[in-house]
Amino acid sequence: MSILTRPILEINLDNIVKNYKLLHSISPKAIAAAVVKDDAYGIGAEKVAAKLYSVGCHNFFVAHGIEGEKIRPFVGNSDIFVLQGIGEDSLESFKKAKLTPVIANPQQFEFWKNNKIKGVKPLIQIETGLNRLGFREEELEELSEDDKKEFSIVLSHLACGDEKEHFMNEHQLLRFNELKERFFPKLKATLSASDGTFLGESFQKDMVRLGAAMYGINTAPYRTNQMLPCIKIVAPVLDIAKLKKGDFVGYSVTYRAATDRKIAIVSIGYGDGIPRSLSNKGKVFFNVNNKIQEARILGRISMDNIICDVTDVENLQVGDMAEIINDFYTLDDIGRDAGTIGYEILSRIGKNPRFIRNYIG
Amino acid sequence: MSILTRPILEINLDNIVKNYKLLHSISPKAIAAAVVKDDAYGIGAEKVAAKLYSVGCHNFFVAHGIEGEKIRPFVGNSDIFVLQGIGEDSLESFKKAKLTPVIANPQQFEFWKNNKIKGVKPLIQIETGLNRLGFREEELEELSEDDKKEFSIVLSHLACGDEKEHFMNEHQLLRFNELKERFFPKLKATLSASDGTFLGESFQKDMVRLGAAMYGINTAPYRTNQMLPCIKIVAPVLDIAKLKKGDFVGYSVTYRAATDRKIAIVSIGYGDGIPRSLSNKGKVFFNVNNKIQEARILGRISMDNIICDVTDVENLQVGDMAEIINDFYTLDDIGRDAGTIGYEILSRIGKNPRFIRNYIG
Repeated sequence: MSILTRPILEINLDNIVKNYKLLHSISPKAIAAAVVKDDAYGIGAEKVAAKLYSVGCHNFFVAHGIEGEKIRPFVGNSDIFVLQGIGEDSLESFKKAKLTPVIANPQQFEFWKNNKIKGVKPLIQIETGLNRLGFREEELEELSEDDKKEFSIVLSHLACGDEKEHFMNEHQLLRFNELKERFFPKLKATLSASDGTFLGESFQKDMVRLGAAMYGINTAPYRTNQMLPCIKIVAPVLDIAKLKKGDFVGYSVTYRAATDRKIAIVSIGYGDGIPRSLSNKGKVFFNVNNKIQEARILGRISMDNIICDVTDVENLQVGDMAEIINDFYTLDDIGRDAGTIGYEILSRIGKNPRFIRNYIG
Repeated sequence: MSILTRPILEINLDNIVKNYKLLHSISPKAIAAAVVKDDAYGIGAEKVAAKLYSVGCHNFFVAHGIEGEKIRPFVGNSDIFVLQGIGEDSLESFKKAKLTPVIANPQQFEFWKNNKIKGVKPLIQIETGLNRLGFREEELEELSEDDKKEFSIVLSHLACGDEKEHFMNEHQLLRFNELKERFFPKLKATLSASDGTFLGESFQKDMVRLGAAMYGINTAPYRTNQMLPCIKIVAPVLDIAKLKKGDFVGYSVTYRAATDRKIAIVSIGYGDGIPRSLSNKGKVFFNVNNKIQEARILGRISMDNIICDVTDVENLQVGDMAEIINDFYTLDDIGRDAGTIGYEILSRIGKNPRFIRNYIG
């Protein structure tokens, strides 16, 4: 028996590389850029970027200047594109790490013209239907010929790339082609993140921006996931106890035992990024003597602990590991059960320093 | 006009101190310990612990050994109690930082007896109704007289302390008194976190463990919050755009404009801890020319951005700040709107390093 207290986050960098290569193989004519924003969706941008750089990736996307600065030492002279653009609060990062802003409106462009960085040609984001960031048509019309020469690549982003037959895909593609042809006929183009990459060559353009799928999320949920899982989370059983008929469990006593049960207290909670919405709803798994057994979560998830029903889990001991996310209960599965998406789960779980982090590869 | 890209997290340490003192004033006979687990619920355990130590707090609770190790340099010789207990994966932290484990079961106690730290007397947690961590009655009966002398303080935890009239409060109090009297008549006792502190002297015992309320959360929601807010989150407007009747917004086009609207794209998203469940439901605020104006969130919240309806917000400019959490839309409010509690919100938002952090006090 081991006495353990800390949850463990295992990150499989080898699988991230395999996913990157698979995605590149379905978009062979495009540059395969890696999206490592939000600390590589929470799992460690330096590690992920360094690994991808070592296998030939030389184009990286981050959200904020400070994120670009953080990965610069690990990616040589790669291009680092910053999706939220440039501003007074990020200019130093751009200068220090030679980052490339994605300019999304006339005001940011004005700022850029007053704060150019030698050798850097920004991208321009254009709006094609998502109604998030990007120059609108009337703003593009205001750009002078000299203005247009400032940019290197035209970027836009799909709203419904994860639904193969959604009318928005064709709508945005046509709109993108039309605006690009009219305003930037000679520039390179990037329209698709992971999801759009699966929509075929017309969506892949000169560069695809690989994020979620690279981390194992199914961004083409209309078919079986082709991506390898990259994340595993386990946490130790702190205690095993009996629950008598009529006993309550957890805050606000939202679970009451109708029969005698056996429970395990697992050392992980919403403070570690496990969604509290899985209270009385989620499940964890135990692999005891090579038999996988499911244990449902009882009562409210608390900040540091989950309580689960192990009445039918044989031979369980204190110190055994509960599996929270594994190869058969993935980010997509826990996201669905929690009423959200794998992206949000992934982005949360990587952020608590009390995880023991194990990188594979 | 400013061009800005980064969200800002403002943490008011002075208000945390005021809350700490107010809570202590309603439990004057008890030691007021501060709970700074989970990096002080995500807002910076070193800063919070150092500040509280400077005003006379000498007892701190963390969840994990590694969290105790992190605050040790900032709290002198204070007692640091570790709620998840001790194990092989945390022993080094305990030795290095002279931490005090809260022992919750016979297995951990066995481990402790084989790995004692000189000058440290552990706490013992006993189970009184929450059915989470703690020695059960039959386990207490197995302790020898020598075993019992190992401990310094008896600890338990309330399930429903935030509901003044809940039957569980009295039930747990009686159970606690009974078990303590029977097994540890001479030891000091701690039963209550913030919520129990409001239940009166019989719940305060020798020590109260102040966490959530200290950070401004209303742990006594049956009456108006007496705590001062300690958290403010703002994020800059990256862009302002027109939405024509019929236009869609965001991923999966879950919002469609029925009339012409004006939108703002704000540089904060679920990657920063804003719950994605606020999609099409939450709101942000603008303070333009000293007039507070509400703007509802349109469409899905994405990892880095929120889109909101600013049709009626006058004089808004790119670079203005959207207020996400402020003095009148608090952690409790956003928690309720997101279908969870302020604790989970707080624990999430502090974890992204791309926030600019401003500490007051």
